[in-house]
Amino acid sequence: MSRNRQVRLGARPVGQPKPEDWQHVTEAVPEPADGRFLVRTEYISLDPAMRGWMNDVRSYIRPVRIGEVMRAAALGRVVASKHPDFAEGDHVTGTFGVQEYAVSDGRGVLRADPARAPLTAYLGVLGLTGLTAYFGLIDVGKPREGDTVVVSGAAGAVGSVVGQIAKHLGCRVVGIAGGAEKCRLLTEDLDFDAAIDYRGQDVRAGLREHAPDGVDVYFDNVGGEILDTVLARLTLGARVVVCGAISQYNATQRSPGPANYLSLLVNRASMTGMLVFDYEPRYAEGIAALADWLAAGVVTPRETVVDGTVDDFPEVLRKLFTGENVGKLVLRVSG
Amino acid sequence: MSRNRQVRLGARPVGQPKPEDWQHVTEAVPEPADGRFLVRTEYISLDPAMRGWMNDVRSYIRPVRIGEVMRAAALGRVVASKHPDFAEGDHVTGTFGVQEYAVSDGRGVLRADPARAPLTAYLGVLGLTGLTAYFGLIDVGKPREGDTVVVSGAAGAVGSVVGQIAKHLGCRVVGIAGGAEKCRLLTEDLDFDAAIDYRGQDVRAGLREHAPDGVDVYFDNVGGEILDTVLARLTLGARVVVCGAISQYNATQRSPGPANYLSLLVNRASMTGMLVFDYEPRYAEGIAALADWLAAGVVTPRETVVDGTVDDFPEVLRKLFTGENVGKLVLRVSG
Repeated sequence: MSRNRQVRLGARPVGQPKPEDWQHVTEAVPEPADGRFLVRTEYISLDPAMRGWMNDVRSYIRPVRIGEVMRAAALGRVVASKHPDFAEGDHVTGTFGVQEYAVSDGRGVLRADPARAPLTAYLGVLGLTGLTAYFGLIDVGKPREGDTVVVSGAAGAVGSVVGQIAKHLGCRVVGIAGGAEKCRLLTEDLDFDAAIDYRGQDVRAGLREHAPDGVDVYFDNVGGEILDTVLARLTLGARVVVCGAISQYNATQRSPGPANYLSLLVNRASMTGMLVFDYEPRYAEGIAALADWLAAGVVTPRETVVDGTVDDFPEVLRKLFTGENVGKLVLRVSG
Repeated sequence: MSRNRQVRLGARPVGQPKPEDWQHVTEAVPEPADGRFLVRTEYISLDPAMRGWMNDVRSYIRPVRIGEVMRAAALGRVVASKHPDFAEGDHVTGTFGVQEYAVSDGRGVLRADPARAPLTAYLGVLGLTGLTAYFGLIDVGKPREGDTVVVSGAAGAVGSVVGQIAKHLGCRVVGIAGGAEKCRLLTEDLDFDAAIDYRGQDVRAGLREHAPDGVDVYFDNVGGEILDTVLARLTLGARVVVCGAISQYNATQRSPGPANYLSLLVNRASMTGMLVFDYEPRYAEGIAALADWLAAGVVTPRETVVDGTVDDFPEVLRKLFTGENVGKLVLRVSG
């Protein structure tokens, strides 16, 4: 327990990150100074955005430096504290990184109450994942009752929550996901009206069938060809929420971009980027709504929990981009 | 005076329209029935949107049919009337088409007062051109004082008005246009802060120099590579107005689309299509503002008037796409 195992970024990946892009390091467990506390990591969140953080480009957040512990949201337990607001035994979430132990001054740290919801929910539906779905759909997508809402990456962490919220708001919800099993999950377990399997089906034909009157709100997690295909089906005044582009994150060549963007002009539609961090002043509102919906069964959390050690992080991250996970992907840190 | 010369669409053009795509026809001048009036065309408006109307695709307006008189906004004089609201001698604008005479029931027809402004202004600054600039910039672009506003097709009919309005609203205005002469016009005659000649200069370098803090509002008339280049320079919360894409209208191959669209995500920016027809209930507001600005010299109308007959329409239209015109392009119909 006196050793802190860490995964650090070793090199800027080209395409899909390779084992050589990571450094596995063991350090002494740090001592928290006054006003700080030590967290032992129990769950590490794996998010598509991580891939962007590894690139040395100007973005909404600075890149992870070479040799730095990989940035990650995580949930852990306070094991030593010199901070007035956090006590030993508290469950907390924060950007603790891919390591067994982290020291924090409490900034950006939220408490997780296992009596209220399963701990993993605090990284998922009640964490940045749920808040991304909530603010992206409601504030940017502005769905109205009866609207057709299409979401890509629909079986993923954010997409599965978006679809369930949209359904609750009285929309017709069509999910796009990869594989028959994910599509079955969407329609049978999560109450989506329809699902399109982009691996086995023509997305264009699927949209014609399942969104015959066009798409009022498109919540995009994937980018690429699917975005382009949905753009061609927008209704007048449609809203496209650009939340992510997982199909592009490992691209080694410049991708062509959505050729059908002129559908925005023809339909007087809009395409707007969203980032959850902008909504920090309203997190409490979002979490309150999501907690109510979770309790009421409106939103069923979906997750893929992989048991392992922090050293398994690179391999688990790979699953995100190959589409092996359903719902929120989490690494449960044993040891 | 008893013959009505017309230009009709003869075929769906592939790429730049060719002479064979047009039919030149002579008909008898029609007699207006009760509730209608006859207009003799004096000026025909040439607009980039015309190219889209020739394609057989679902869009915001039905395509011009093969064999139909080419759709065009025009200004003319009432020469015979059985309509209570329009008298012989009135100057009027409307969608009269590429022909010497048109019959109208008055719908969509506006009066033009030559005592208030030069007649051509009613097709330009005081017509749909000016209204497009006004509502596109103000309602969709939402410029704030001190913003950097970039406009492409800046020496064109809409672009030149957009830039002048933005300047009046206290923005830093950078125009993108083709050729040194157009750029000189922008900075010397129209008071733009800077101009980038996309034919002679690297647009990216030009933006770094003239919009060093990034682009808050981009008013896009051209699409293609220029759109993509500007997207990479957006500021947080920037607004992109998709008004047109003249670089694409004659494309015979599918264009690649703006690869840098993920700048919308990184910058939480939006890209929104606009069409002037949606603002019809507010035309009076726009025209009042534009007329004031015209009278006060805030907006200097720019136009290229070509003298000819309706038969010259195809050749004049070509100028729009080769970039030969400055400001509003108008065919003055003699004969």
